[in-house]
Amino acid sequence: MQDVKQYMQEVGKTARAASRLMAQADTATKNRALTEIAVALQNQSAQLLAANARDVSAARAGGLDDASVDRLTLTEKSVLGMSEGLLQIAQLPDLIGAISDLSYRPSGIQVGKMRVPLGVIGIIYESRPNVTADAAGLCLKSGNAAILRGGSEAIHSNQAIAACVHAGLRAAGLPETAVQVISTTDRAAVGELITMKEYVDVIVPRGGKSLIERVSADARIPVIKHLHGVCHVYIDDEADLDKAIRIADNAKTQRYGVCNAMETLLVAQSVAAKVLPGLCKIYLDKNVELRGDEAARALVRQMSAATEEDWFTEYLAPILAVRVVAGLDAAIAHIATYGSQHTDSIVTENYSKAMRFLREVDSSSVMVNASTRFADGFEYGLGAEIGISTDKIHARGPVGLEGLTSQKYIVLGSGQIRV
Amino acid sequence: MQDVKQYMQEVGKTARAASRLMAQADTATKNRALTEIAVALQNQSAQLLAANARDVSAARAGGLDDASVDRLTLTEKSVLGMSEGLLQIAQLPDLIGAISDLSYRPSGIQVGKMRVPLGVIGIIYESRPNVTADAAGLCLKSGNAAILRGGSEAIHSNQAIAACVHAGLRAAGLPETAVQVISTTDRAAVGELITMKEYVDVIVPRGGKSLIERVSADARIPVIKHLHGVCHVYIDDEADLDKAIRIADNAKTQRYGVCNAMETLLVAQSVAAKVLPGLCKIYLDKNVELRGDEAARALVRQMSAATEEDWFTEYLAPILAVRVVAGLDAAIAHIATYGSQHTDSIVTENYSKAMRFLREVDSSSVMVNASTRFADGFEYGLGAEIGISTDKIHARGPVGLEGLTSQKYIVLGSGQIRV
Repeated sequence: MQDVKQYMQEVGKTARAASRLMAQADTATKNRALTEIAVALQNQSAQLLAANARDVSAARAGGLDDASVDRLTLTEKSVLGMSEGLLQIAQLPDLIGAISDLSYRPSGIQVGKMRVPLGVIGIIYESRPNVTADAAGLCLKSGNAAILRGGSEAIHSNQAIAACVHAGLRAAGLPETAVQVISTTDRAAVGELITMKEYVDVIVPRGGKSLIERVSADARIPVIKHLHGVCHVYIDDEADLDKAIRIADNAKTQRYGVCNAMETLLVAQSVAAKVLPGLCKIYLDKNVELRGDEAARALVRQMSAATEEDWFTEYLAPILAVRVVAGLDAAIAHIATYGSQHTDSIVTENYSKAMRFLREVDSSSVMVNASTRFADGFEYGLGAEIGISTDKIHARGPVGLEGLTSQKYIVLGSGQIRV
Repeated sequence: MQDVKQYMQEVGKTARAASRLMAQADTATKNRALTEIAVALQNQSAQLLAANARDVSAARAGGLDDASVDRLTLTEKSVLGMSEGLLQIAQLPDLIGAISDLSYRPSGIQVGKMRVPLGVIGIIYESRPNVTADAAGLCLKSGNAAILRGGSEAIHSNQAIAACVHAGLRAAGLPETAVQVISTTDRAAVGELITMKEYVDVIVPRGGKSLIERVSADARIPVIKHLHGVCHVYIDDEADLDKAIRIADNAKTQRYGVCNAMETLLVAQSVAAKVLPGLCKIYLDKNVELRGDEAARALVRQMSAATEEDWFTEYLAPILAVRVVAGLDAAIAHIATYGSQHTDSIVTENYSKAMRFLREVDSSSVMVNASTRFADGFEYGLGAEIGISTDKIHARGPVGLEGLTSQKYIVLGSGQIRV
């Protein structure tokens, strides 16, 4: 325990020192490091896969479930994917140092803002080893130092990826301590990481709800967190029903285990009889289990009764809750009560109702006539994504490079003093 | 204790409900409320001063120090000032609902950002009752609900101001619960306020370092905090010495008890002999106590020896620490080690050194050839200021209306689905 504390203090201290150098690194140097890491990952592919095989067989022996083993497993293709991801990050514009809104004030000074890195970013994640390369790349490009803590079951894979990251940093003349992958599997390391205020500026937990809740509860450092996505599609009585069916189908069934999938469908009373039977047939044909309120069940008999709990639930599975609502006000009220402020979409051709939904629904992404599945850093054009924030301060929604930065004020004077 | 918990839960619940209505309130309605509050404050001036007199005499009887009694005391002029402050906030542009960066993506959807309120803002402050009106006005204009907890010594003054705020909200048809001033002086109320995650979105503590440290340590909600200002002026060897003396004088002596006053002066070795004797004469004439390192003391004999502690100290008083440094690198290193990331200024005519200082000094305001005293919401053109943030996420530096808002993503489609 004392050893872990000492180890983490050392990690934090060296990360803080490295963050100063990273903040000053120029674009070409950062891109060089990203490219060199990408090359190292490809060159070291065999060693990576061997390290990963050790993790996978230990995980199987330890009885890890199939889905987790699947997430843990690297293939030649996934190593290539990591490598390509880094080259893509190298292509993104460098935001650091950008000056905006520089204008003269009556006193004669010019005031503006300069985009700067946050400093040291702590990332805590679970079994997927590719997060190690992704997160390292995003932190590096945004001029931050990173402390990465992956799942204990991926320790050998993560250390092998770390070796490639360090080789790349070295080749570009950047400090290896700019990206540190925690080498101990002791859980106390997480406790240290999320409380080292003097060395860590922000924590990004990536993983299941329990991980994120635990980290948020104990952290003494700001957390950019993504709790869960109870996403809604509301089919308005003035919806184009073709669009409505296409969007409601896609939002639920295009992929089930993702946070931006629809979990509850809301339908305006006056169009429920027209839209629900046909739409629900699509769901049932795709083996989606339906749970509805009385009005919905009166229209679709293969629907079980939804409980109060269902409206709060993120299924991440082929299950859908369905509720018939009086209209827009009831839909907005339902989303405010049961939603998770992640992503909600209205289908309507009515301008005023579209505008009201956009303004009044307090979620990180609010949509009109589009599938909730678009809530994604790549679809939004951010070029990369470290996660989706359901917080209200700093960054909401998909978080790309900009979310790992901040802005400081700059003042350019020519000798002005305050009178 | 149980009563306080229940009371605060009720406050939180009603604030959350009010925040939904405030988020939708249009600009004219919010400005109407601000104007009505301003009128009420002027009309109720006699009652306000009577309530304040009760607080002041109780505070005197309780042995409160003169400076605190001074901050607590309202006058006809300060009531007028509060009223005018609200009218100024009414004049500021309404940021809420503003849409930016709306552009088409290859999928055909349009993605942009809409500025939205944070929700419910908890503000904890000390003796100045005028914060009640200021904070209420800023939260109202930015579409937030506010829970205000002032110092117990100002309870009658704050309740009297709250009555005016409520009258104004009523007159504009907005819920009175949009601004609630805690009516109990029980300290447990603060503990509840900073942990009611479900009802409060952000906490802004305004007061001394001990208040802010206590709030930050115990809060379970994001805190926009301003710790302290150990601000530096660095006089470079290529400084225009007239500007250097004017700025260094102003940064220290224009006002002493403020966070953006200079606390440590750094001077490049090769100009120290030219600049320090004359500059220090100015300080000594103004009764500023000087504490320096050996090199500085060799040039100015009326300087005592600075200790390591001095470099870390925010004096908020006519005391100045002075250090002679080798040059720009040493100055930046000193600021990184001892500064508080508040405001730092370089005086130089050299372009490259100015650019390096701007980029490399990691403070919320970084200046070239200007007095640190300019770090202020009004001087920066924000129109108002709820505080100065020394945090790195969300908002750095002076925080105006924009700091009380966030941006959500909006997506405008015409039936698009994800493939």
